[in-house]
Amino acid sequence: MIEQDLDPYVKATEALTGVASVPVAVVGPLEIELGEYELQEPDGTLFERGRASDSVYVPLANTEGGLSISLYRGSRAAAESGGFRTHVLRDRVTRASAFLFEGTADAATFARWIETRLPDMRDWLTGANVEGLSRHAKLREIETHVVGPMCHVLYAYTTGDAVGMNMITRNSYALNQVFVAEHTPVKPRRIYLEGNMGGDKKISHRYFEAGGHGKTVIAECTLKEDAIRRVLRTSVDELLDLTFVGTHGAVASGMQSIAFTPATAIAALFIATGQDVGMVGTSSMAHGTALRVEGGLNVSIRLPGLEVATIGGGTTLPYARSWLRLMDCEGPGKVYRFAQIVAAATLSLEISASAAMATAGSENFYKAHFERGGLR
Amino acid sequence: MIEQDLDPYVKATEALTGVASVPVAVVGPLEIELGEYELQEPDGTLFERGRASDSVYVPLANTEGGLSISLYRGSRAAAESGGFRTHVLRDRVTRASAFLFEGTADAATFARWIETRLPDMRDWLTGANVEGLSRHAKLREIETHVVGPMCHVLYAYTTGDAVGMNMITRNSYALNQVFVAEHTPVKPRRIYLEGNMGGDKKISHRYFEAGGHGKTVIAECTLKEDAIRRVLRTSVDELLDLTFVGTHGAVASGMQSIAFTPATAIAALFIATGQDVGMVGTSSMAHGTALRVEGGLNVSIRLPGLEVATIGGGTTLPYARSWLRLMDCEGPGKVYRFAQIVAAATLSLEISASAAMATAGSENFYKAHFERGGLR
Amino acid sequence: MIEQDLDPYVKATEALTGVASVPVAVVGPLEIELGEYELQEPDGTLFERGRASDSVYVPLANTEGGLSISLYRGSRAAAESGGFRTHVLRDRVTRASAFLFEGTADAATFARWIETRLPDMRDWLTGANVEGLSRHAKLREIETHVVGPMCHVLYAYTTGDAVGMNMITRNSYALNQVFVAEHTPVKPRRIYLEGNMGGDKKISHRYFEAGGHGKTVIAECTLKEDAIRRVLRTSVDELLDLTFVGTHGAVASGMQSIAFTPATAIAALFIATGQDVGMVGTSSMAHGTALRVEGGLNVSIRLPGLEVATIGGGTTLPYARSWLRLMDCEGPGKVYRFAQIVAAATLSLEISASAAMATAGSENFYKAHFERGGLR
Amino acid sequence: MIEQDLDPYVKATEALTGVASVPVAVVGPLEIELGEYELQEPDGTLFERGRASDSVYVPLANTEGGLSISLYRGSRAAAESGGFRTHVLRDRVTRASAFLFEGTADAATFARWIETRLPDMRDWLTGANVEGLSRHAKLREIETHVVGPMCHVLYAYTTGDAVGMNMITRNSYALNQVFVAEHTPVKPRRIYLEGNMGGDKKISHRYFEAGGHGKTVIAECTLKEDAIRRVLRTSVDELLDLTFVGTHGAVASGMQSIAFTPATAIAALFIATGQDVGMVGTSSMAHGTALRVEGGLNVSIRLPGLEVATIGGGTTLPYARSWLRLMDCEGPGKVYRFAQIVAAATLSLEISASAAMATAGSENFYKAHFERGGLR
Repeated sequence: MIEQDLDPYVKATEALTGVASVPVAVVGPLEIELGEYELQEPDGTLFERGRASDSVYVPLANTEGGLSISLYRGSRAAAESGGFRTHVLRDRVTRASAFLFEGTADAATFARWIETRLPDMRDWLTGANVEGLSRHAKLREIETHVVGPMCHVLYAYTTGDAVGMNMITRNSYALNQVFVAEHTPVKPRRIYLEGNMGGDKKISHRYFEAGGHGKTVIAECTLKEDAIRRVLRTSVDELLDLTFVGTHGAVASGMQSIAFTPATAIAALFIATGQDVGMVGTSSMAHGTALRVEGGLNVSIRLPGLEVATIGGGTTLPYARSWLRLMDCEGPGKVYRFAQIVAAATLSLEISASAAMATAGSENFYKAHFERGGLR
Repeated sequence: MIEQDLDPYVKATEALTGVASVPVAVVGPLEIELGEYELQEPDGTLFERGRASDSVYVPLANTEGGLSISLYRGSRAAAESGGFRTHVLRDRVTRASAFLFEGTADAATFARWIETRLPDMRDWLTGANVEGLSRHAKLREIETHVVGPMCHVLYAYTTGDAVGMNMITRNSYALNQVFVAEHTPVKPRRIYLEGNMGGDKKISHRYFEAGGHGKTVIAECTLKEDAIRRVLRTSVDELLDLTFVGTHGAVASGMQSIAFTPATAIAALFIATGQDVGMVGTSSMAHGTALRVEGGLNVSIRLPGLEVATIGGGTTLPYARSWLRLMDCEGPGKVYRFAQIVAAATLSLEISASAAMATAGSENFYKAHFERGGLR
Repeated sequence: MIEQDLDPYVKATEALTGVASVPVAVVGPLEIELGEYELQEPDGTLFERGRASDSVYVPLANTEGGLSISLYRGSRAAAESGGFRTHVLRDRVTRASAFLFEGTADAATFARWIETRLPDMRDWLTGANVEGLSRHAKLREIETHVVGPMCHVLYAYTTGDAVGMNMITRNSYALNQVFVAEHTPVKPRRIYLEGNMGGDKKISHRYFEAGGHGKTVIAECTLKEDAIRRVLRTSVDELLDLTFVGTHGAVASGMQSIAFTPATAIAALFIATGQDVGMVGTSSMAHGTALRVEGGLNVSIRLPGLEVATIGGGTTLPYARSWLRLMDCEGPGKVYRFAQIVAAATLSLEISASAAMATAGSENFYKAHFERGGLR
Repeated sequence: MIEQDLDPYVKATEALTGVASVPVAVVGPLEIELGEYELQEPDGTLFERGRASDSVYVPLANTEGGLSISLYRGSRAAAESGGFRTHVLRDRVTRASAFLFEGTADAATFARWIETRLPDMRDWLTGANVEGLSRHAKLREIETHVVGPMCHVLYAYTTGDAVGMNMITRNSYALNQVFVAEHTPVKPRRIYLEGNMGGDKKISHRYFEAGGHGKTVIAECTLKEDAIRRVLRTSVDELLDLTFVGTHGAVASGMQSIAFTPATAIAALFIATGQDVGMVGTSSMAHGTALRVEGGLNVSIRLPGLEVATIGGGTTLPYARSWLRLMDCEGPGKVYRFAQIVAAATLSLEISASAAMATAGSENFYKAHFERGGLR
C-alpha cells in the first residue's frame, strides 16, 4: 500500500488505519446565475436578496470513464443557451423524536399540547444553561404525527453552513429530556430521539415532496434548438420522446425520482468536497422536467433534500477544503452557493446523458460507454 | 494541497487533476457464517453449495466520529450471540430498453413476440460476431411492460464479479439494434437503450421488492438476552418498542426502507473498496426486522440490490485492492463473499445504533453524538 | 327488471334509466366514546370540546357472506374490553390548482407572492360579489409546490358537513380567474383548476401521511386478554405474530396502507349512506397498529382521509337519509360523529378478520369463507 | 322508508334489514374494438384469438351531476376518431400465504423448496379428495419473498369468470394445511393464509406494476384533431400542457396512479353490475398516457388490476344481472369482454374530464361543476 501521512485524519475516525483515495477531475466552466439568500428571523423563511452570474469549475471524484466529458458537454450546451439559473426554495433539517404512550388518547393530548409550544421552545433553546446546546441549530417548526399510541414530533431546524445532524441531535435531546419532561401533560411510556420520520439517510416520500432534510434547490436552463443540434447532436422532438418514455418508465417501476442519473454527479461532488457520502441517496432524490417553449426546451431538476455543508465534518479535511476553495465555497456563508452549484452540475450531466440516450437507438450513449467505459 | 502521484489514476477519469482522500478505520472481527454460491446454467438460479464460518475485519472510509466504535460494538454483541448468518437470494443486473410505437396495439404485439425470444437471444449473444459483445454478461430473463404506446423490455443479466453496467449496455444495444431490428414484427418509432425501468442509481419499489440490480442479500443474528444487556446496555422489550415506533414512523413518512442507517455502513465500505458511490442510495435500500424468539431477539436486514464488485472499475485502484484483500475479497470468485460481508457489517451498525436509540430517552445515542461527534 | 319509482332520483343523474339496489345488514351496537369537535376561526383548527359515549347500530350495504357477522364479532370483543375511543385529528379538503410558466424563475416568483396572500384571499372570498362563490367552503391554508416551470397551489378548505368538491371547485376557480389574474406579478402560460396534487379519488402518499382530503380519524381499543380468548378465539401472541408478518408483507409489496381490509367496511357504509363510492379507495387509506400493553393489546386504525358527508350529494336520497338517521347522523352538525362511527366500524372488522387470520393456519378465516362465502 | 321485497337478497348478507338503491344512467354507444382471449394450459398465458368491433351502452350507478354527460362526450370524441381499442394483458388473482420461522435460514430453505413444487401442487389440487377445493381456481405460478424470519408465498391463480377470492382462499388453505404440512423440509412456527402481500383491497406498487389481482387491461384511442376541437372544445397543445402538469403533480404528491378520475367511472359500473365495491380502490389503479402522433393525440389508460366478474357474488342479484345483460356481459365466458368495456368507459371519462380541465383556466370543468353539480 502507498505510504501516506495520517496526521490530518486522526480526529476523523476511531481505529484509523489508512486512507482511500479517489481521482478527481476538474471540468467547466459552468455558467450559472445564482440567487443570494438569507434566512429571516424567527421563522427561517428564505429571502432572495439578489442574483448574480458566475463561471465555476467543479471537482468530480470518480472512476467512471466518460463522466467528466459528458458533464462538460452538458455545461457547454447550457452556456450556449444563456447558462443555468438556480433557486433555493427551502432550508431545513429535521429530527423526528417519538413519544410512545399506552393509547391514542394520550398521544393525541400530547400532540395538541406540544404543537403550541414552539415559541417557548425557541426561547428555552436560546436561554437554557444546558451542556451541549447548539446556538447554530435554530428551531423553526414543530409538526406532530399521531398514529396508534405514539406521537412523532418533527423538529425542523436551520443549521447555518453545516448539515448539522450533531447539533440538532443535541438540541432535540435537551428538548425531550428537559423541556418536555418538565411540562408534558401526559407521561410517555418511552421517549425516542428519533422514530424514523426524520428522513435521515433513507429516502422517503415526505422529504421528496416537501424537503426538510437539507436544501431544496432547482436548477434550470432553456436549451436553444441550435445548441441541442450542434452540441448535443439531437433534437427537441427526440428529447421529448425520451422524456415521455423515461417518465412513464419511472412511474411504472415505482421509482422515487423522475430523472436520469443525478446520483452520479452528486456522489462525485460529495467525495471531492468531504460531504457525508451516506447522504448520497437522499440528496439525489430528484424531480426533472422538460417542456417545449418558444425557441427551445426548458429543462430543470429539483433536488428537494440536498444535504451539503461548507463547514464541519469531512469538509475540514485538507483535500476537501482545497476542492471547495476551487468553487469559492470554502467556509461560512457559502452553503447556498455550493448547493446551487451542485444542482447546476447535476443538471449538466442530466442534459448530456439524456441527449446521448435520445439519439437513434441511443447510439451516442452506447458509444460513450463502449469507448470510455473506464477501468476494466 | 498535498502532493500525490497521479500515475495510478490516469485511466480512471478524463480531466484528471488531483485526488480526494478519505481516512479508513479497520474494525472487527465480525464472526460470520457465509453461504457459498454458484449460478446454475442457463437460468442463473443461485445454488448454495455449502456454508462456512469466518472472522473478518472490515475497512470503513469515513469521517463520522463514533461510526467505527458503534459498528464494532454491534459485531461484539453478535459474536457473543453465535455470530451472523448471511444468505444470497438473487443475483441480477437489469437494463430496461424501451420501444416506442404509435399506439398500444403495436406495443402489445411487440411484447408478445419478444417474450418468446429468450432462447434465441441467448444463442445470438453467445455466437454473434459483433464488436463489443461481452461473454460475461449472460442474459437470464426478459420481461415486458406495456403501458400506452410503449413497450419496456427488461433484460436481466448476471455479470460475474463485476457490477457490469458497461457489459450489459453493450449487449442490450446489440440486441436492440441488430437482433430486434432484424426480426421484430412491428417497427418502432423510437428505440431507447434505457427507458427508466432499469433501476440504475435511482431507488424504486420494483427493485426494493424483487431485486434485479445487484445481489439480494440477508444477514441475520439471534441476539442473546445476555449480550443485549451486557454489550448493548438495553433489553429485548426496549428494542421491540423502538422497532414498533421506527417501523410505523417509516411507513408514516413514506420511507423506502424499514431500517435505521444502512447507508452509513455501506458508504464507508464502498469508498474504501472502490465501489461506485453513485450506487450508495440504491444499494442501501433495506428491509430490517426484529422478532422475539426463544432466548433472545432475531434481527435481520435484507439488502435487495447491493451493487458490489471485486473486479473492474474503481476496485482496480491501489487503495481499493488493498482494502478488498484485507477481507479476502480481491479479484474473481469473491463477489458473493464480499456482498455477505457488507450485509453483516451493515447489520452490525443497525444493531448498535438501534440499541443506543432504544435506551431511556435515547441517552446512549445522544452521548455517542455528543462525545464523538467527530470533526467540528 | 323490477319496477321501481324513479321520481326520487330524477335530479341525481342525467340519462336516468333505472336503479341498482344493494341489500343492507344492520349490526351492533358498537360501544364508542366519541369526541365532540368544532372548528376554530379563522385557522380551522379542530377543538375537542367534550367526549361522550354512545351505542350505535351500523348499516352495511354488501353482498359478502360473513361480513356482517365478522364485524359484529369485532364490536363484541371491543365492547367487552371497554369499547372504542375515537378522535378526529384534522378536517380539510384540497383543490390544487396549477400555474404553468415558461421557466422556473417565474414559477418561484409566483409562489413567493401567493404564499403571502392568504388573508387577502379569505377576505375576498367572503366579500366578493361573484356568482357561484360558496360561503361554506372556507379557505384555511395555501401551500405551494414549485417543480420545473410550474407552481402547484394547494388550497385547503373546510366545507362543513358536506364533502364539498363542488364548493371548493367554484371558490378556487374564482380565486384563480379573478383574484390571481388581477394581482399576479407574473402572467402564467396556462392556469389549471387542478394539477393532480389535490388528492381527489386517487391514492397518494401526501394525503396518506398528512390528510387534507376529508377527516383524519383514529379509532382505538385496548382488547382485554379475556375478550381475545373468549370472543376472538385467539391470543395476544398469535395476533402480534400476525401483525409482524402482515406489516412486513405490506412493506414488501409497496402497499399503501398497513391494515387488513378497511375498504370492505367503508364500502358497505358508503353505499348505504349515499357517500361518493368513487372515494372508497382514498377513504380506505389506513394505518393500523397493535401494541402489547398491560392487560391486553392496544389496537388502532388511522384513516387519514375519510371523505364523508351528512348533507348534500347522495346523502339526500331516501335510502341514504334513513340509514344515516339510524346512526343519528342525518343532516347538519353530524359529520364528525359520522366519521368516528365509520372509523369504529372499520376497526371492528379489522379486529375480527385479524383474529380469524391469526388462528393456527388461519383456520377460522378459512372456515368463515368456506361456510359463509355468500352468493355463488 | 320505501317498502321493498327483500326476498332476492336473503342469501346475500346476514342481518339483512333493507336495501340501498342508487340511480342508474345509461349512456353510449361506445364504439370499441375488443380482443377475444383464452387462457392457454397449463401456464395460463393469455392468447388473443381474434378481435371484433361492437357498440355498447354502459350503465352508470351514480349521483354525481355531469358524470353521465361527460362520459358520453368522451365516447363521442372517440367514436369520431375511429373508436376505442382494448387489450387484456394479464389475468391472475393472488393469495399470499406467509410462513413464519425462528430465523432466516429456515425461511430461505423453505423458499428454495416450495419454488420447485409448482407442478406437484397443480396435480394435487386437481386430484386430491379434500372438501372445498375448487377446480375453477387454477394455480399458475408460485413466487416467494424471504424477509427476516418469514417466507411469503404468492400463489397466483386464474378463476374463470369470477373474481374468485373464496375459491383461492379454499385452495390455498388446503395447500398450506395438507400439501405443505406433509412435505415441508422445515417446520414453521406459524402459517398464515394471507400475510399482506396478496394485494386484496389495498393498493400496492407490486400490483400497480405487474398486475396479479384481476385483469390487466389497456384501452386506447387516437383522438383526431378535428374531434378534439369540435367535440372536446380544446386542442392537442392544451391537452399536452395539462398532461405535463398533471403527470408532474401526481409524481410530486406521491400519487399511486397517473390519471384523472378513473375511480368515478369504475365505481359507477361496479355498483350497477354487482361487483365488490370494496375493490373500487385497487381496481382504479391506473396509468394513463398521452402522446402526439400523426394527425392527433394517442391517449390510453392501463388498469393493472381490474377485479371484475360476470358470475358469482353480487352479479347474481336481479339488478346486476339486468345491467350486465345490457352490455351482453351476463354469465360465463364474458369476463374479458366486460373488463374491456369497463376500461373503455373509464377512458371515455378521462378524455372528457381532461378536455374540460385543459381549457383556459379550466373554464369548462368549472362550468360543468357549477351547472350540473347535482344534488345539493
